[in-house]
Formats: sequence, structure tokens, C-alpha cells
Amino acid sequence: MQNTMKVAVMRDIGKIEIEERPVPVPLEEEVLIRIKSVGVCGSDVHYFTEGRIGDYVVKPPFVLGHECSGEVVEVGSKVKTLRPGDRVTMEPGIPCGKCEFCRSGRYNLCPDVVFWATPPIDGTFCEYVTHPASFTYRIGEGVSFEEAALVEPLSVGFYAVRRSGIEPGQSALVLGSGPIGLVTLLVLLARGVGRVFTVDIYALRLEKARELGAAEVANAREVDVVEWVKELTGGKGVDVVFETAGSVATTQQTTEVVKRGGKVVLVGLPSQSRIDYDIIKVIDKELDVLGIFRYANTYPGCVDLLNSGKVNLKALITHRFSLEETQKALEFAHQNKAESVKVVVNVD
Amino acid sequence: MQNTMKVAVMRDIGKIEIEERPVPVPLEEEVLIRIKSVGVCGSDVHYFTEGRIGDYVVKPPFVLGHECSGEVVEVGSKVKTLRPGDRVTMEPGIPCGKCEFCRSGRYNLCPDVVFWATPPIDGTFCEYVTHPASFTYRIGEGVSFEEAALVEPLSVGFYAVRRSGIEPGQSALVLGSGPIGLVTLLVLLARGVGRVFTVDIYALRLEKARELGAAEVANAREVDVVEWVKELTGGKGVDVVFETAGSVATTQQTTEVVKRGGKVVLVGLPSQSRIDYDIIKVIDKELDVLGIFRYANTYPGCVDLLNSGKVNLKALITHRFSLEETQKALEFAHQNKAESVKVVVNVD
Amino acid sequence: MQNTMKVAVMRDIGKIEIEERPVPVPLEEEVLIRIKSVGVCGSDVHYFTEGRIGDYVVKPPFVLGHECSGEVVEVGSKVKTLRPGDRVTMEPGIPCGKCEFCRSGRYNLCPDVVFWATPPIDGTFCEYVTHPASFTYRIGEGVSFEEAALVEPLSVGFYAVRRSGIEPGQSALVLGSGPIGLVTLLVLLARGVGRVFTVDIYALRLEKARELGAAEVANAREVDVVEWVKELTGGKGVDVVFETAGSVATTQQTTEVVKRGGKVVLVGLPSQSRIDYDIIKVIDKELDVLGIFRYANTYPGCVDLLNSGKVNLKALITHRFSLEETQKALEFAHQNKAESVKVVVNVD
Amino acid sequence: MQNTMKVAVMRDIGKIEIEERPVPVPLEEEVLIRIKSVGVCGSDVHYFTEGRIGDYVVKPPFVLGHECSGEVVEVGSKVKTLRPGDRVTMEPGIPCGKCEFCRSGRYNLCPDVVFWATPPIDGTFCEYVTHPASFTYRIGEGVSFEEAALVEPLSVGFYAVRRSGIEPGQSALVLGSGPIGLVTLLVLLARGVGRVFTVDIYALRLEKARELGAAEVANAREVDVVEWVKELTGGKGVDVVFETAGSVATTQQTTEVVKRGGKVVLVGLPSQSRIDYDIIKVIDKELDVLGIFRYANTYPGCVDLLNSGKVNLKALITHRFSLEETQKALEFAHQNKAESVKVVVNVD
Repeated sequence: MQNTMKVAVMRDIGKIEIEERPVPVPLEEEVLIRIKSVGVCGSDVHYFTEGRIGDYVVKPPFVLGHECSGEVVEVGSKVKTLRPGDRVTMEPGIPCGKCEFCRSGRYNLCPDVVFWATPPIDGTFCEYVTHPASFTYRIGEGVSFEEAALVEPLSVGFYAVRRSGIEPGQSALVLGSGPIGLVTLLVLLARGVGRVFTVDIYALRLEKARELGAAEVANAREVDVVEWVKELTGGKGVDVVFETAGSVATTQQTTEVVKRGGKVVLVGLPSQSRIDYDIIKVIDKELDVLGIFRYANTYPGCVDLLNSGKVNLKALITHRFSLEETQKALEFAHQNKAESVKVVVNVD
Repeated sequence: MQNTMKVAVMRDIGKIEIEERPVPVPLEEEVLIRIKSVGVCGSDVHYFTEGRIGDYVVKPPFVLGHECSGEVVEVGSKVKTLRPGDRVTMEPGIPCGKCEFCRSGRYNLCPDVVFWATPPIDGTFCEYVTHPASFTYRIGEGVSFEEAALVEPLSVGFYAVRRSGIEPGQSALVLGSGPIGLVTLLVLLARGVGRVFTVDIYALRLEKARELGAAEVANAREVDVVEWVKELTGGKGVDVVFETAGSVATTQQTTEVVKRGGKVVLVGLPSQSRIDYDIIKVIDKELDVLGIFRYANTYPGCVDLLNSGKVNLKALITHRFSLEETQKALEFAHQNKAESVKVVVNVD
Repeated sequence: MQNTMKVAVMRDIGKIEIEERPVPVPLEEEVLIRIKSVGVCGSDVHYFTEGRIGDYVVKPPFVLGHECSGEVVEVGSKVKTLRPGDRVTMEPGIPCGKCEFCRSGRYNLCPDVVFWATPPIDGTFCEYVTHPASFTYRIGEGVSFEEAALVEPLSVGFYAVRRSGIEPGQSALVLGSGPIGLVTLLVLLARGVGRVFTVDIYALRLEKARELGAAEVANAREVDVVEWVKELTGGKGVDVVFETAGSVATTQQTTEVVKRGGKVVLVGLPSQSRIDYDIIKVIDKELDVLGIFRYANTYPGCVDLLNSGKVNLKALITHRFSLEETQKALEFAHQNKAESVKVVVNVD
Repeated sequence: MQNTMKVAVMRDIGKIEIEERPVPVPLEEEVLIRIKSVGVCGSDVHYFTEGRIGDYVVKPPFVLGHECSGEVVEVGSKVKTLRPGDRVTMEPGIPCGKCEFCRSGRYNLCPDVVFWATPPIDGTFCEYVTHPASFTYRIGEGVSFEEAALVEPLSVGFYAVRRSGIEPGQSALVLGSGPIGLVTLLVLLARGVGRVFTVDIYALRLEKARELGAAEVANAREVDVVEWVKELTGGKGVDVVFETAGSVATTQQTTEVVKRGGKVVLVGLPSQSRIDYDIIKVIDKELDVLGIFRYANTYPGCVDLLNSGKVNLKALITHRFSLEETQKALEFAHQNKAESVKVVVNVD
């Protein structure tokens, strides 16, 4: 095996260069993985173009990328669950395992989590990574590496849907049909929810939503979404609304389109912190407004959905690049929201 | 419209005769429904052959049948949600709406429920029934009356699965692949559970299970079920086991095949009350053992699953009879467990 | 028994007159109750001074009052659970028992609820009322009628605390120490929560809070509440914050003072609908923001807390008036927020 | 500080000797604690008299004891939450923090837990122990070391009550009034449940139960428990029954005394594995039968209850011994069930 590997290193805002670095060595409970596919996430694009997200500031050299899959090439001395040749997807955040959040099953809130591509932790736009075996998951034979890389965004949708408690017979509205909106749609359908409505402003994304099984779709530039939802639901509103667009307008719509006693699940981070929000409707309709921060305990479920063919992640991938083209991939994703859904970097 | 109708009346144990009776008149919040299909339930067969189930004793003349669908032909003066021509399925039990169980959402436990074909309340092996509009549900255009009649047993599976809290990524074992076992399988698959294992002693039923999507099936006459589950789950056991066979042996197996921290859902009534049950395993594995008594708040979800094509109830129906042949239908269902799954009486 | 009774009738905004009306006659499932005590609620005061709350408009003649207790004097022919002489408290809202909300245990959201003193339904500032036996609850011998009347506001606190899911070991902040803030405090303490912090701007109410068992209290006019909570919680924030003050400022504070993964329970209706609310904190901290609309299934629990002496409602009552003084009682409650907590009208 | 300490070492079945051993040295995330009090648990007595519990076999030399409190005397280099002089209670089981049970908040089911006094892990009948700081909890000033030692059994009651979901207004029956029955009673009362009924066969324990606040108590040798519960509950049964006695008879009673839709919480391990259990009642009443294995995430809540004076653990302690008398303490506990409740070894 080679001793060095290629790494796509962010050198400055908007500037990524390929570099040679030593292949890392797995600790006793870790595995060494040859990376196969890495999805480009909105956060990667944001770090690439802005150099920061909130308090997290990139200090170059830095490596982006955290939605990934690969093949195990070496295992640490104490690893019993995996062996070389295993095809895997990796959960990018490793929590401490000891704090009150970790102990009570909400490890996504662990303040000491170590998460790929969240400064200062390097990510996975490279050829090899080491990772704890316990956060590395084997995928089924029929699942491609590209799909396996997208288990990470799928996890966000999976977690949002689980937290909503929705079940068949209830209706859902997904605001935003970008990658997160679409994986939310996929999970809802896979869990038996028949009436899922989706909204976006890009035609391509609405087509994808319809193709994947949305019962109804609307372009918010052409339709009054609140009125449209009323018509679809006999004036009642939907049982659960998932906000994945992160805009002020869609966030404000949530209290309008949701039914009495319903739930609002907030996934998309709006660009401004404070939003004029209808608190009286929250009380009067007795809503649950639920924030979503990453995910916990989702990988086995997502892999199961993929293995059993219940979600079609392939359909999300619209553009592919090589590791050497990482800069191009990030630029493309940044500039082509209307013409793309998911951009993937294939390392091999 | 005609003034009288045909009714299949149980005159004695094992004896059903067709009789003319007046067509009932709907009260102001009721609808009059022309019956289209009625499924034959195990309880119908039991009343027919034994004349009683526990404390419920048939006093002839009595009408069996409670799994049914039909077409609305007349609506009471206060009914606004339905109109003549609507194709519907009916929830057979009407709770009081006032007791502590009704108030807290568990109306299946209402002590004053009025339930078709539970003595002394006549059932639906007849041409017309009246029913509260609020317990009558419109079905989609693509759904046949035969399927709609089976929303009732589907509800049992739906409720059992909901009560288990199972989600994608967890594994399930369904003990028994009769109608209730199969609808449980269908609901599990429709809700995204990928690894569902089923057991029965009849080859036909196991074939159905496999055809409907069970990941693995076993004939309990040929295989040691406990060992088989261990192999399938790496020695851990399944997350949830659904007991639908109602036998002593399968009930006892539940604590063996279930994983630590798992759940046992008891649906099938065993013929003997007290069973040697492994209480130490319940404690040591920290199990939830959950009884299932009918269902509540399941019809909208079941109809949604049917409308969206996520469950295939047609596959369950193996034999059909006319209303005039009700006696034959019940005799057939009683004598042909190995060669049949669901027997349906089509009234039209 | 007398045939007529005194009723305190709202004739116009700010004007109540005592009138003679016939004593009502109970239906077969109802009881006739001689009213003993009626608490003055903020909504009574609002209708009295403004003539409306949102879409609910008073059309005189109208009777206010819905927090009440009394003695059963007559029972309908089908009533088996109560008899004359029983000392009782009454749940003021009677839901339909049939809609999807009623069926699923959330009858507080029933669109057809009939609720005392919510226009056009007359309330209980009078000598006699009829009421369904199933919403009339016997109280223990040691419980006074004044306390029993306050089971209604206690229910709001009980429901808010239940909905929060808080348990011993977690900390709570109650914003606002008026009647609803104080009953929330009482329920928290009665359910074993040891660290309850309360805030108000009136000294009397903070004294009450401290007397009733608040671990710490703060006057928001003197203290920076956000900093104060940080100090009390080692910078983490509280597990659950209950907003009962209904002000813009306190509503906005909720996302600041609550811990990561915590819950915000919104009880107090702010005067303006839209509030600049920190949605990014809701997502980043993964909060549950839960609206509270009245209550459901709370009376048995509240009566149990009263009977067992676990809550001290007496301490809330600061002023008493007679039925003839109803106008004075409402005026007093309106003008003396700083010097009063709960005002009660004693009918006998 | 001294270099050696006294340890009460089990040398053989029924034989404990005091031995000198080196004082242990804390690792960087551990603290060194001077033991103050150690409660004698039924499992200690069982290991002492039988040499094993199920598959766990004592291989002498072995140290018993796991219910304990003490004073921090030294802290590891990375410990920030504790310092010398802190008065503490210690959670005896340290889970792996990585397995599926640990990750999902159910660390009590961790197969790799390291638990004091569960062979081969030595316990705390000694002068000093080291322990992870994250499983060591500071107690309030008003709490004695004896009470703090009993946080461990209190945790069992706390966890059982939490798992039951009981709330004020519901009734509970506690079968068995030994230490676990009594702490269950204490937690129920502290959480606002007013009607708790308790049963035992020893007069002393029933007196304790009554003294601590049980609404009703019964001696199962004198009273037909099933009939007694029917009388107390108007024939309905209790909402939740906690089985802590571990006898065949009480385990069988659970399905009789519990209400329709109620819960059975199984805490006490019966001496025989299989018990004739009324499975039809589990189904017909739609019960939840819940096993309890140790506890998870309970210490903060238990310490809060102690700190705020909401539970009175002192009342449970009937007999005290010194560390040198450990053998005597275990013998006494073994032979005097009728005359004792909790036996404590005070090390200082």
C-alpha cells in the first residue's frame, strides 16, 4: 500500500489545492478507509466561499467534506466488527460518550463532539481517513458508494422525521426541495406517509420531488403557498411542516400552514437570527415547534432503508467531479443551485 | 329503494339462514350503507362453531360479520362529511366518547363500546347497515371494496406496529402468518422496516409472507425458531416480536427471540389463560411486553396506506363467497386453515 | 328549593348587574350544582373591560366566570357517579367527544367545545348551574370550596408541566408569578422538581413564589434575568422555561435562558401576534417550543394533588367578594395587579 | 495521607475478613474517595450466602458493597467538576459509552458495564475507592452520608417510576415493602402521586410504609390482596402496579390488581424463571408489562430529591455496623428480614 495520499486542501477562501500527505494510521479501535465518494454539503460550500459559519472559522490549511463512503483497508487491533474489504459509510461526528447528552441518547448535542470539516477538524476530501469502527457502518451489496456517501444528509431527514413522530394517515409539507428537503420527502414516503406536499422556487427541484413521489408540488414564485395548503387540506393545514429552505418567508409560513395541534420541524438555518414569528398561533394552535441539530442514532436506520431499496438516493445526484476537481465541484455547487441538486466528488 | 333486505342470520351453532328484514333508517348523524364486502374473521368462525368467546355468548338470532365496506346510499340530516355514492369502509366499534378511556385517546378500552358482531350487537352479513358518519371513512378510487373491507384487520396490525414504536433500522419477527400476521408484516414494510422475519406452520401462508416482502420465513415444524432467529441476528435477537399465532409455544418463544431492551407485542389470544412465561427474562432483558386489544385511531392511517398503494391487501384474499353462501364461507374458513388465508363474502 | 336565582349579568363593557333568572333543570346525564366559589380569571377581566378576546366578542347580556366549585343539589336520571350533597369542582369546557381531537385524547383542541364564559356560552357568576356529571369531580373533605374553584387555573399549570415532561433533577424557570405562574410553580414542586426559579416585576407575587417554595426568585426590574439564570445554572440555562407573563420581553428571553436540548413552554398569550423570536437558537440548541391551549385530562390529577395536600392553593387567594359584588371584584382585579394575586367571588 | 487501607474481603461463602491493601491511585479522569457509608443490598447478602447470582460467580478474594457515599480526597489531572472535600455519592456501574445501548440512552443495558461488587469487579466495603468523576455526584449540605449511600437503591425506585410514566391522579400499588418497595413508595409520593397502596408480610415494613405516607397498607398474610385492591379502587384496579417482592404469588397478582390499560412494572427477580402468568389478561386489559434492570440517568434526579428534602431515606435505616463488622452486617441482614429494613455499614 502507498504511504502518501492526495488531499484537497483549502488554502484560502475560494482556493483548494491538491497536496500529498502521509496516509494516517488507525488506532486500536479505528479502521483505515479508502474514500470512494464524498457529497458536497451546503456547509462545505459556505466554508469555501465565506471562510466561516457562525463562530466556526476556517484557519487554512483546512480539509472540507464529511458526507462520505469508502472501503475498509486496515483495522485496528481491537476491531472485531469490520474487516478489510468491507464497503462502508461513516458517521462524521464522534461524541465524547460521557456527558449528560451522550448518556441520555442525545449525543448530537455533545459539546465535545469531534466532527469532520467543522473547524479545526479536517474533513474527508482525500484518499484515506481513519475512523472509529463503532461509527463506521457496513452497507449492502446493492448499494453504490455514491448512495452510501449520502447517508449523511439522509440522516438529517431521518432524524427530523423521527423527531416529528409523524405516521401514515397524517399529511406533511416540506418547505424547500434542495437535498435536505428531498431526503426528508424520501424518508416520509419510506415510512408510509402518503400525502407529502413540497415547495421550492426551482423547477428542477420540484420535478425531482414529483419524480420521487411527492403527492403535490408548488412553485412558491407562482403560487400562494398558504392558500394552496388550505385547498389541499380542506382548510385545516398539514399535520407536520418541515422547514428546510432556511428563508425568513418559509419560516414564517410554518405557523400558517400547520394544523391545530400540529408540529413545525425547523431544519434550515435562516440567515438572520431573529425572525418575526407568530407566537400567538403557536399557543392558540398548541403547536410543537422543534429545532433540529444534526442527528443521533440514525445510521443503522438509514442504511436499512438503503439496503431494502426503500429510498432512492441516486436520483438526487445531478453532477459528479473527481478529487482533483474538488475546487470546481464546490464552485459549481455554489453557482448552480437552480440547475443542480446534489454534487458528488468521486475519489477513485 | 327496496324496503327489505337479505340478512344472514345465525340461528344456532353452525347454522346460518338467509332472512328478510326491514332496511334500517339512519339517525341524523348516521349514514345508510349498502354493504359490498365482508371479511370472515376468526372471531366470526369461533362464534359460529362454539357459540361464545369468553364471556360473550351468542343468543340467536344473531348476525355475524364486522370487517366491511360499502357504498353510502342515504345520509342523516346532520351529516356533512359524506354523501350518497361515497365508497366507504366502516370502523365497527362505536365508543361512548365520555369515559376516561375515550377522553384520553384509548377508546378501544371503552367499557361501553358498541361493536358489530360482539353479542348482543348484530353484525354486517347483510345488505344494508346504518352507521355513525364519524366512524365511516371514504376510500380512494383505486381501492376495491374487498380491500376496503380488510381495513379492519389491517387496523389490528397498524395498531400493534404503532404501539411497538418500531422504526427503520430495527428488526421484527412476526410469529404466525395468518391474516393478522400478514397485515402486521404489511404495515411493518410500509413503515420502512426492512428486516421482517415471519414464522408459520402452513406452507401457503409462508409463501404469502415471502411474496409480500418478508426478508426471511421459517416453518416452525421444520426449524428451531429460536436458533434461526439467533443466526439471523448475530445472536442478539430481534428488536420487536409480534405474537399473532396465539399458541402457547409461540407465546413462550417471545422472551427468547427478542433482544435485550426489546419489545414483545402480544396480539394473538392463546387458548389457555395462564402460560408458563419467563418473567426473569422480562426483567433481565428489560423488556416491554405489550398487550393489544383491538385498535384506536387507526382508520385514517390504514386508508392512507391503501390509497397510496403501500400495502397490498388483495394478496391476502384466497376465497370468495356470496351473501347467500355465508354459512359455507364460515365452514370453509373453519376447515381450511392450511389452504386459505382470507375468506371474503361479497354481498353484491 | 327556590325556583329563581341571582345571576351577575354583564350588561355592557364595565357594567355588571344582578338579575333574577330561573334555576336551570338538569338533563338526564347532568347535575344541578349550587355554586360556592368562582375565581376571577384574567379572561373574565379582559371581557369585562374590553368586550372581546380576539374573535370572541361579548354580546350582552352575558355571564362571566368559569373557575368554580359547588355542591350537587340534584342529579339527572342517568347519573350514577354523583349524588346530592357531593362537594365538587367543575371542568368548564365540554368537548364534542367525536372529532379527531377528542378521539385522540386532545379534547382541548375540539373545535366544537362548549366552554363557560367564552361567548356566547354563559358562565358561572350565579347561584346555580347544570353540568354534565362526567365533567364534575368530587373533592376531598379537607378541601375548601375556594381551593376547589382554583382547580381550573391549577389545570393550566398541571397541563403545561405534563406537556414539558420535566422530572426531578431538572431545573425550571417560571417567567411571571401571577396566578398561572404560581400554579405552575406549585405543580412543579408537587411533582418533585427541586430547583424552580421564578421571575416577576411585582414584589408581592415574588414573595408568594418564595413562600410557596421557589428555590430562587428575581425581580425583572432589578435584575438581568438572562445573566441571573446563567449564574444559577453554571452558564448552562434551565432544562425547561415556562413563559406565563405573556410579554414580548419574557417571550424573547425564553431561547436565551433555556439549556441546549431544553424546552420552552409558552402559556401566556402576548398582546402582539408576531414577535422577533430567535429561530437560530431554536435550531442550534435543538429546542422544543411548545404552545399550551387550555388543558385536557387534568382534573383527576389536580384534585388528587389538592386532596393529598401537595399543593397549597389557599395561599394564592388575596381578596374575596360576594356575588353581589361581582362588578367590584372584576374592577379590583383589573386595577390591582401589584397588590393582589387571586381574587375570588364567594356565592354563599 | 495513609498508603494502605482496610478492606472487608470475602474469603469464602459466609466468610469476610479485614485486610490491609494499598490505597488506589486515581487516573486522570478519576477521583479518590474516602468511603463513609455503604448500604447492604440484597445482592450482597446473596453473594455472601450463596456465592453466586445466576451466571455471576464469586471467586474469592472478592469485595462486596456498591451502595456508597464518601468524601473526595484527591482528583485526577483532568477532573474539573470535583475537588477535595466534596461530599459525594457514586453511581456503581460504568458503561462503555460506545455500544448501541449507551448511544441511545439505555446504558444500563450495556453488555460491557463495569459494576462494583458484580464478579469479578471488587466493591466498596473498604476505606478508599477510585471512581470516574463523571459518575460521582456532589450531595447537598443537609444530606448525611448514610442517606447519600442509599441513592443507589433510590435509583431503582426512581427508574421504575419514570419508566411507568405514572403521574398525579393515578393510583399505584407497591407489592413488597422492603428497601426497594419503600424507595418506590418514596419516589411516587415525591412525584405527586397521592394514592399509593403497599403490601408486605412483615409488620415492621408495613409500619414504615404507613409512616412514609402510603395511603393504605395491607399484610398479605391477613388480607386477600386482590379483593382489597378492588375495594380501594371501586373494582377497577390500580393504574400501575410495582412488583418488588420477587415472589411467584405477587408476580401473578399483578395482572389481577391492575386496571384496564394499566401498567405492570416488574422489579423484583423471582426465584424461579418461568411463572404461570395470565397472558390473556395482558392482552384483554391491554397492559404494558415492563421489566426493570438497574437504572440509567437517575442520579441527578435522586440527589435533587434528597437535597430538596422530598424523600426521607433516613427512615429506611434500621441497623448500623462498622467496616470491621461487615461480616456481622451481612449475617444480620440475612437473618432478620422481619425486624430490619436497611442495614448500613459506616466506614468512618
